[in-house]
Amino acid sequence: MEPPLDNLIRVLSRLPGLGRRSAERAALALVRRPTGLLQELLAALEHARATVCCCDVCGGFTVRDANPCPLCTDPRRDAATICVVEEPGDILAIERAGVFTGRYHALHGKVSAARATGPADLRLQALAERVAREPVTEIILAVSTDLEGDATAAYVQELLRGGRPVRVTRLAFGLPVDSGVGYSDPLTLKRALGGRQEA
Amino acid sequence: MEPPLDNLIRVLSRLPGLGRRSAERAALALVRRPTGLLQELLAALEHARATVCCCDVCGGFTVRDANPCPLCTDPRRDAATICVVEEPGDILAIERAGVFTGRYHALHGKVSAARATGPADLRLQALAERVAREPVTEIILAVSTDLEGDATAAYVQELLRGGRPVRVTRLAFGLPVDSGVGYSDPLTLKRALGGRQEA
Repeated sequence: MEPPLDNLIRVLSRLPGLGRRSAERAALALVRRPTGLLQELLAALEHARATVCCCDVCGGFTVRDANPCPLCTDPRRDAATICVVEEPGDILAIERAGVFTGRYHALHGKVSAARATGPADLRLQALAERVAREPVTEIILAVSTDLEGDATAAYVQELLRGGRPVRVTRLAFGLPVDSGVGYSDPLTLKRALGGRQEA
Repeated sequence: MEPPLDNLIRVLSRLPGLGRRSAERAALALVRRPTGLLQELLAALEHARATVCCCDVCGGFTVRDANPCPLCTDPRRDAATICVVEEPGDILAIERAGVFTGRYHALHGKVSAARATGPADLRLQALAERVAREPVTEIILAVSTDLEGDATAAYVQELLRGGRPVRVTRLAFGLPVDSGVGYSDPLTLKRALGGRQEA
Protein backbone atom coordinates (compact mmCIF):
# COMPACT_ATOMS: atom_id res chain seq x y z
CA MET A 1 0.00 0.00 0.00
CA GLU A 2 1.19 3.50 -0.84
CA PRO A 3 2.67 5.34 2.18
CA PRO A 4 0.11 7.87 3.51
CA LEU A 5 2.32 10.89 2.94
CA ASP A 6 3.10 9.94 -0.68
CA ASN A 7 -0.59 9.28 -1.24
CA LEU A 8 -1.49 12.73 0.15
CA ILE A 9 1.15 14.42 -2.02
CA ARG A 10 -0.14 12.61 -5.12
CA VAL A 11 -3.76 13.63 -4.51
CA LEU A 12 -2.83 17.24 -3.70
CA SER A 13 -0.74 17.50 -6.87
CA ARG A 14 -3.89 16.79 -8.90
CA LEU A 15 -5.39 20.10 -7.74
CA PRO A 16 -5.05 22.87 -10.33
CA GLY A 17 -2.22 25.27 -9.51
CA LEU A 18 -0.27 22.79 -7.41
CA GLY A 19 2.85 21.28 -8.92
CA ARG A 20 4.66 18.32 -7.38
CA ARG A 21 6.82 20.58 -5.21
CA SER A 22 4.01 22.72 -3.81
CA ALA A 23 1.89 19.60 -3.21
CA GLU A 24 4.80 18.25 -1.18
CA ARG A 25 5.12 21.44 0.86
CA ALA A 26 1.36 21.48 1.43
CA ALA A 27 1.34 17.83 2.53
CA LEU A 28 4.20 18.42 4.99
CA ALA A 29 2.37 21.45 6.41
CA LEU A 30 -0.75 19.30 6.81
CA VAL A 31 0.90 16.44 8.72
CA ARG A 32 2.96 18.79 10.89
CA ARG A 33 2.12 18.71 14.57
CA PRO A 34 -0.10 20.13 16.00
CA THR A 35 -2.51 18.98 13.33
CA GLY A 36 -4.85 21.98 13.41
CA LEU A 37 -4.59 22.70 9.70
CA LEU A 38 -5.29 19.08 8.71
CA GLN A 39 -8.36 19.02 10.97
CA GLU A 40 -9.61 22.30 9.53
CA LEU A 41 -9.17 21.11 5.95
CA LEU A 42 -10.94 17.84 6.74
CA ALA A 43 -13.84 19.75 8.30
CA ALA A 44 -14.04 22.19 5.38
CA LEU A 45 -14.07 19.33 2.85
CA GLU A 46 -16.70 17.38 4.80
CA HIS A 47 -18.83 20.52 5.07
CA ALA A 48 -18.49 21.24 1.34
CA ARG A 49 -19.32 17.64 0.47
CA ALA A 50 -22.40 17.69 2.67
CA THR A 51 -23.79 21.07 1.64
CA VAL A 52 -22.50 22.31 -1.73
CA CYS A 53 -24.62 21.34 -4.73
CA CYS A 54 -25.54 22.77 -8.12
CA CYS A 55 -28.57 25.00 -8.54
CA ASP A 56 -31.33 23.15 -10.41
CA VAL A 57 -32.06 26.24 -12.50
CA CYS A 58 -28.71 27.82 -13.45
CA GLY A 59 -26.31 24.98 -12.62
CA GLY A 60 -24.10 27.26 -10.50
CA PHE A 61 -22.78 26.34 -7.08
CA THR A 62 -25.14 26.78 -4.16
CA VAL A 63 -25.99 24.98 -0.90
CA ARG A 64 -28.70 22.37 -0.45
CA ASP A 65 -31.04 24.66 1.49
CA ALA A 66 -30.82 27.42 -1.14
CA ASN A 67 -31.91 25.73 -4.35
CA PRO A 68 -32.70 27.54 -6.67
CA CYS A 69 -29.70 29.66 -5.74
CA PRO A 70 -29.78 33.30 -4.53
CA LEU A 71 -28.78 34.54 -8.01
CA CYS A 72 -31.80 32.79 -9.57
CA THR A 73 -34.30 33.95 -6.95
CA ASP A 74 -33.09 37.56 -6.50
CA PRO A 75 -36.02 39.66 -7.88
CA ARG A 76 -33.66 42.60 -8.55
CA ARG A 77 -31.75 40.59 -11.15
CA ASP A 78 -32.89 41.00 -14.75
CA ALA A 79 -34.65 37.83 -15.91
CA ALA A 80 -34.56 38.99 -19.54
CA THR A 81 -30.83 38.33 -19.94
CA ILE A 82 -29.11 34.99 -19.38
CA CYS A 83 -25.33 34.79 -19.40
CA VAL A 84 -24.25 31.30 -20.51
CA VAL A 85 -20.97 30.06 -19.05
CA GLU A 86 -19.09 26.78 -19.21
CA GLU A 87 -18.28 26.15 -15.54
CA PRO A 88 -20.07 27.03 -12.28
CA GLY A 89 -16.86 28.76 -11.21
CA ASP A 90 -17.15 31.16 -14.17
CA ILE A 91 -20.26 32.64 -12.50
CA LEU A 92 -18.17 33.56 -9.45
CA ALA A 93 -15.61 35.28 -11.70
CA ILE A 94 -18.27 37.40 -13.41
CA GLU A 95 -19.99 38.19 -10.10
CA ARG A 96 -16.64 39.29 -8.68
CA ALA A 97 -16.31 41.75 -11.56
CA GLY A 98 -19.71 43.16 -10.57
CA VAL A 99 -20.61 44.11 -14.13
CA PHE A 100 -23.62 41.90 -14.86
CA THR A 101 -27.05 42.00 -13.25
CA GLY A 102 -28.93 39.34 -15.23
CA ARG A 103 -29.26 35.59 -14.69
CA TYR A 104 -26.79 32.78 -15.41
CA HIS A 105 -26.73 29.36 -16.97
CA ALA A 106 -23.75 27.03 -16.51
CA LEU A 107 -23.41 24.37 -19.21
CA HIS A 108 -21.04 22.23 -17.10
CA GLY A 109 -18.47 21.89 -19.84
CA LYS A 110 -17.96 22.67 -23.48
CA VAL A 111 -18.14 20.63 -26.65
CA SER A 112 -14.81 18.83 -26.85
CA ALA A 113 -13.71 16.06 -29.17
CA ALA A 114 -10.60 15.43 -27.05
CA ARG A 115 -12.62 14.82 -23.88
CA ALA A 116 -15.50 13.20 -25.79
CA THR A 117 -17.92 15.83 -24.48
CA GLY A 118 -20.81 16.18 -26.91
CA PRO A 119 -23.80 18.52 -26.81
CA ALA A 120 -25.84 15.88 -24.96
CA ASP A 121 -23.40 16.01 -22.03
CA LEU A 122 -24.03 19.73 -21.50
CA ARG A 123 -26.99 21.45 -19.84
CA LEU A 124 -28.26 22.59 -23.24
CA GLN A 125 -31.78 21.16 -23.05
CA ALA A 126 -32.24 22.88 -19.69
CA LEU A 127 -31.26 26.16 -21.36
CA ALA A 128 -33.86 25.67 -24.14
CA GLU A 129 -36.50 24.98 -21.49
CA ARG A 130 -35.57 28.14 -19.59
CA VAL A 131 -35.84 30.22 -22.76
CA ALA A 132 -39.31 28.73 -23.41
CA ARG A 133 -40.43 29.29 -19.80
CA GLU A 134 -38.72 32.53 -18.70
CA PRO A 135 -39.10 36.06 -20.18
CA VAL A 136 -35.67 35.87 -21.85
CA THR A 137 -34.83 38.34 -24.62
CA GLU A 138 -31.03 37.97 -24.80
CA ILE A 139 -28.55 35.13 -24.34
CA ILE A 140 -24.96 36.28 -23.77
CA LEU A 141 -22.45 33.54 -24.57
CA ALA A 142 -19.53 33.88 -22.15
CA VAL A 143 -17.76 30.75 -23.39
CA SER A 144 -14.03 30.24 -23.98
CA THR A 145 -12.30 31.93 -26.86
CA ASP A 146 -10.93 28.68 -28.28
CA LEU A 147 -12.20 26.25 -30.91
CA GLU A 148 -14.19 24.29 -28.32
CA GLY A 149 -15.81 27.51 -27.13
CA ASP A 150 -16.65 28.37 -30.74
CA ALA A 151 -18.21 24.93 -31.24
CA THR A 152 -20.19 25.30 -28.00
CA ALA A 153 -21.44 28.73 -29.06
CA ALA A 154 -22.53 27.27 -32.40
CA TYR A 155 -24.48 24.51 -30.65
CA VAL A 156 -26.29 27.00 -28.41
CA GLN A 157 -27.26 29.09 -31.44
CA GLU A 158 -28.46 25.97 -33.27
CA LEU A 159 -30.46 24.89 -30.22
CA LEU A 160 -32.22 28.24 -29.87
CA ARG A 161 -33.05 28.53 -33.56
CA GLY A 162 -36.05 26.25 -33.16
CA GLY A 163 -37.69 28.20 -30.33
CA ARG A 164 -38.95 31.69 -29.64
CA PRO A 165 -36.61 34.28 -31.22
CA VAL A 166 -34.05 35.72 -28.76
CA ARG A 167 -30.98 37.82 -29.35
CA VAL A 168 -27.77 35.76 -29.01
CA THR A 169 -24.54 37.67 -28.34
CA ARG A 170 -21.02 36.68 -27.40
CA LEU A 171 -18.45 38.46 -25.23
CA ALA A 172 -16.12 40.69 -27.26
CA PHE A 173 -12.77 39.36 -28.41
CA GLY A 174 -9.77 41.64 -28.07
CA LEU A 175 -6.74 42.58 -26.07
CA PRO A 176 -6.99 42.08 -22.31
CA VAL A 177 -6.71 45.18 -20.15
CA ASP A 178 -3.16 46.00 -18.99
CA SER A 179 -1.68 44.13 -21.93
CA GLY A 180 -0.35 45.21 -25.31
CA VAL A 181 0.16 44.15 -28.89
CA GLY A 182 3.61 42.81 -28.05
CA TYR A 183 2.15 40.31 -25.58
CA SER A 184 -0.71 39.09 -27.75
CA ASP A 185 -0.88 36.02 -29.94
CA PRO A 186 -1.68 36.35 -33.68
CA LEU A 187 -5.28 35.08 -33.33
CA THR A 188 -6.09 37.59 -30.59
CA LEU A 189 -4.59 40.38 -32.72
CA LYS A 190 -6.62 39.25 -35.73
CA ARG A 191 -9.84 39.27 -33.70
CA ALA A 192 -9.02 42.55 -31.96
CA LEU A 193 -8.42 44.12 -35.36
CA GLY A 194 -11.66 42.68 -36.76
CA GLY A 195 -13.61 44.04 -33.80
CA ARG A 196 -11.95 47.47 -33.78
CA GLN A 197 -14.08 50.42 -32.68
CA GLU A 198 -13.98 54.22 -33.04
CA ALA A 199 -11.46 55.62 -30.59
CA MET B 1 -22.06 30.84 9.18
CA GLU B 2 -19.42 31.15 6.48
CA PRO B 3 -20.56 29.63 3.16
CA PRO B 4 -18.91 26.22 2.68
CA LEU B 5 -17.08 27.20 -0.51
CA ASP B 6 -15.62 30.40 1.03
CA ASN B 7 -14.62 28.39 4.07
CA LEU B 8 -12.85 25.78 1.89
CA ILE B 9 -11.04 28.52 -0.07
CA ARG B 10 -9.90 30.19 3.16
CA VAL B 11 -8.50 26.96 4.62
CA LEU B 12 -6.80 25.97 1.35
CA SER B 13 -5.17 29.41 1.05
CA ARG B 14 -3.38 28.74 4.37
CA LEU B 15 -1.39 25.92 2.74
CA PRO B 16 2.12 26.98 1.73
CA GLY B 17 2.41 27.69 -1.98
CA LEU B 18 -1.29 28.45 -2.48
CA GLY B 19 -2.29 32.07 -2.92
CA ARG B 20 -5.89 33.25 -2.82
CA ARG B 21 -6.39 32.63 -6.54
CA SER B 22 -4.97 29.13 -6.63
CA ALA B 23 -6.90 28.21 -3.46
CA GLU B 24 -10.03 29.34 -5.27
CA ARG B 25 -9.24 27.26 -8.35
CA ALA B 26 -8.45 24.25 -6.16
CA ALA B 27 -11.72 24.64 -4.21
CA LEU B 28 -13.75 24.86 -7.42
CA ALA B 29 -12.03 21.73 -8.74
CA LEU B 30 -12.85 19.97 -5.48
CA VAL B 31 -16.58 20.75 -5.45
CA ARG B 32 -16.98 20.06 -9.17
CA ARG B 33 -19.18 17.10 -10.03
CA PRO B 34 -18.45 14.21 -10.06
CA THR B 35 -16.79 14.62 -6.68
CA GLY B 36 -14.07 11.99 -7.12
CA LEU B 37 -11.21 14.37 -6.30
CA LEU B 38 -12.88 15.63 -3.10
CA GLN B 39 -13.48 12.04 -1.97
CA GLU B 40 -9.88 11.11 -2.70
CA LEU B 41 -8.50 14.10 -0.82
CA LEU B 42 -10.77 13.35 2.15
CA ALA B 43 -9.59 9.74 2.19
CA ALA B 44 -5.92 10.74 1.88
CA LEU B 45 -6.25 13.23 4.75
CA GLU B 46 -8.10 10.75 6.97
CA HIS B 47 -5.45 8.13 6.20
CA ALA B 48 -2.62 10.56 6.97
CA ARG B 49 -4.30 11.67 10.21
CA ALA B 50 -4.79 8.09 11.32
CA THR B 51 -1.36 6.75 10.45
CA VAL B 52 1.33 9.45 10.12
CA CYS B 53 3.24 10.22 13.31
CA CYS B 54 6.70 11.36 14.30
CA CYS B 55 9.46 8.84 15.01
CA ASP B 56 10.21 8.70 18.74
CA VAL B 57 13.93 8.62 18.02
CA CYS B 58 14.66 11.07 15.18
CA GLY B 59 11.42 13.07 15.14
CA GLY B 60 10.97 12.52 11.39
CA PHE B 61 7.70 11.49 9.79
CA THR B 62 6.82 7.82 9.91
CA VAL B 63 3.71 5.67 10.33
CA ARG B 64 2.39 4.28 13.63
CA ASP B 65 3.41 0.70 12.90
CA ALA B 66 7.00 1.71 12.01
CA ASN B 67 8.24 3.56 15.09
CA PRO B 68 11.24 3.97 15.33
CA CYS B 69 11.21 4.79 11.63
CA PRO B 70 12.99 2.83 8.86
CA LEU B 71 15.82 5.41 8.75
CA CYS B 72 16.53 4.86 12.47
CA THR B 73 16.36 1.07 12.32
CA ASP B 74 18.24 0.50 9.04
CA PRO B 75 21.47 -1.26 10.12
CA ARG B 76 23.24 -0.09 6.94
CA ARG B 77 22.97 3.55 8.00
CA ASP B 78 25.94 4.96 9.88
CA ALA B 79 25.01 5.47 13.55
CA ALA B 80 28.17 7.54 14.16
CA THR B 81 26.84 10.58 12.29
CA ILE B 82 23.63 12.45 13.13
CA CYS B 83 22.36 15.15 10.80
CA VAL B 84 20.35 17.69 12.79
CA VAL B 85 17.53 19.42 10.86
CA GLU B 86 14.78 21.81 11.83
CA GLU B 87 11.71 20.19 10.29
CA PRO B 88 10.75 16.55 9.61
CA GLY B 89 10.29 17.56 5.96
CA ASP B 90 13.96 18.53 5.77
CA ILE B 91 14.84 14.85 6.18
CA LEU B 92 12.87 14.02 3.03
CA ALA B 93 14.75 16.73 1.11
CA ILE B 94 18.16 15.34 2.15
CA GLU B 95 17.06 11.76 1.46
CA ARG B 96 15.90 12.82 -2.00
CA ALA B 97 19.39 14.18 -2.68
CA GLY B 98 20.75 10.72 -1.78
CA VAL B 99 24.01 12.13 -0.40
CA PHE B 100 23.85 11.19 3.29
CA THR B 101 23.90 7.74 4.85
CA GLY B 102 23.90 8.53 8.57
CA ARG B 103 21.03 9.10 11.01
CA TYR B 104 18.81 12.15 11.49
CA HIS B 105 17.43 14.26 14.29
CA ALA B 106 14.61 16.77 13.67
CA LEU B 107 14.42 19.58 16.22
CA HIS B 108 10.84 20.49 15.23
CA GLY B 109 11.61 24.16 14.86
CA LYS B 110 14.36 26.64 15.43
CA VAL B 111 15.06 29.21 18.11
CA SER B 112 12.93 32.21 17.17
CA ALA B 113 12.18 35.33 19.17
CA ALA B 114 9.41 36.31 16.71
CA ARG B 115 7.53 33.04 17.19
CA ALA B 116 8.52 32.76 20.87
CA THR B 117 10.24 29.42 20.24
CA GLY B 118 12.91 28.90 22.84
CA PRO B 119 15.41 26.03 23.22
CA ALA B 120 12.98 24.25 25.56
CA ASP B 121 10.43 23.98 22.72
CA LEU B 122 12.86 22.05 20.53
CA ARG B 123 13.87 18.38 20.69
CA LEU B 124 17.26 19.36 22.12
CA GLN B 125 17.19 17.23 25.27
CA ALA B 126 16.35 14.20 23.15
CA LEU B 127 19.44 14.96 21.04
CA ALA B 128 21.67 15.11 24.12
CA GLU B 129 20.27 11.75 25.27
CA ARG B 130 20.95 10.20 21.87
CA VAL B 131 24.54 11.43 21.95
CA ALA B 132 24.98 9.91 25.42
CA ARG B 133 23.35 6.60 24.36
CA GLU B 134 24.38 6.07 20.73
CA PRO B 135 27.91 5.69 19.26
CA VAL B 136 27.84 9.21 17.81
CA THR B 137 31.10 10.85 16.73
CA GLU B 138 29.81 13.71 14.55
CA ILE B 139 26.79 16.02 14.61
CA ILE B 140 26.14 17.79 11.30
CA LEU B 141 24.01 20.90 11.75
CA ALA B 142 21.79 21.24 8.68
CA VAL B 143 19.88 24.25 10.02
CA SER B 144 18.77 27.36 8.15
CA THR B 145 21.31 29.93 7.04
CA ASP B 146 19.54 32.81 8.80
CA LEU B 147 19.96 34.39 12.25
CA GLU B 148 17.50 31.93 13.79
CA GLY B 149 19.44 29.03 12.30
CA ASP B 150 22.66 30.53 13.70
CA ALA B 151 21.07 30.82 17.15
CA THR B 152 19.80 27.24 16.94
CA ALA B 153 23.26 26.00 15.94
CA ALA B 154 24.75 27.86 18.90
CA TYR B 155 22.27 26.20 21.29
CA VAL B 156 23.09 22.75 19.99
CA GLN B 157 26.82 23.38 20.45
CA GLU B 158 26.21 24.69 23.96
CA LEU B 159 24.07 21.66 24.78
CA LEU B 160 26.70 19.18 23.62
CA ARG B 161 29.55 20.91 25.40
CA GLY B 162 28.59 19.26 28.71
CA GLY B 163 28.59 15.68 27.41
CA ARG B 164 30.96 13.28 25.69
CA PRO B 165 33.11 15.12 23.10
CA VAL B 166 31.75 14.89 19.54
CA ARG B 167 32.68 16.75 16.39
CA VAL B 168 30.05 19.40 15.51
CA THR B 169 29.96 20.64 11.91
CA ARG B 170 27.61 22.77 9.88
CA LEU B 171 26.65 22.59 6.19
CA ALA B 172 28.82 24.84 4.02
CA PHE B 173 27.61 28.32 3.13
CA GLY B 174 28.04 29.48 -0.45
CA LEU B 175 26.47 29.99 -3.82
CA PRO B 176 23.76 27.53 -4.79
CA VAL B 177 24.44 25.37 -7.84
CA ASP B 178 23.17 26.81 -11.14
CA SER B 179 23.33 30.33 -9.76
CA GLY B 180 25.83 33.13 -9.99
CA VAL B 181 27.27 36.14 -8.25
CA GLY B 182 24.73 38.39 -9.94
CA TYR B 183 21.85 36.52 -8.36
CA SER B 184 23.28 36.33 -4.84
CA ASP B 185 22.58 38.57 -1.87
CA PRO B 186 25.49 40.33 -0.09
CA LEU B 187 25.48 38.00 2.94
CA THR B 188 25.68 34.90 0.77
CA LEU B 189 28.55 36.47 -1.19
CA LYS B 190 30.35 37.38 2.04
CA ARG B 191 30.04 33.83 3.35
CA ALA B 192 30.95 32.27 -0.01
CA LEU B 193 34.08 34.43 -0.07
CA GLY B 194 34.95 33.53 3.52
CA GLY B 195 34.60 29.82 2.73
CA ARG B 196 36.49 29.92 -0.57
CA GLN B 197 38.48 26.82 -1.53
CA GLU B 198 41.30 25.93 -3.93
CA ALA B 199 39.90 25.65 -7.43
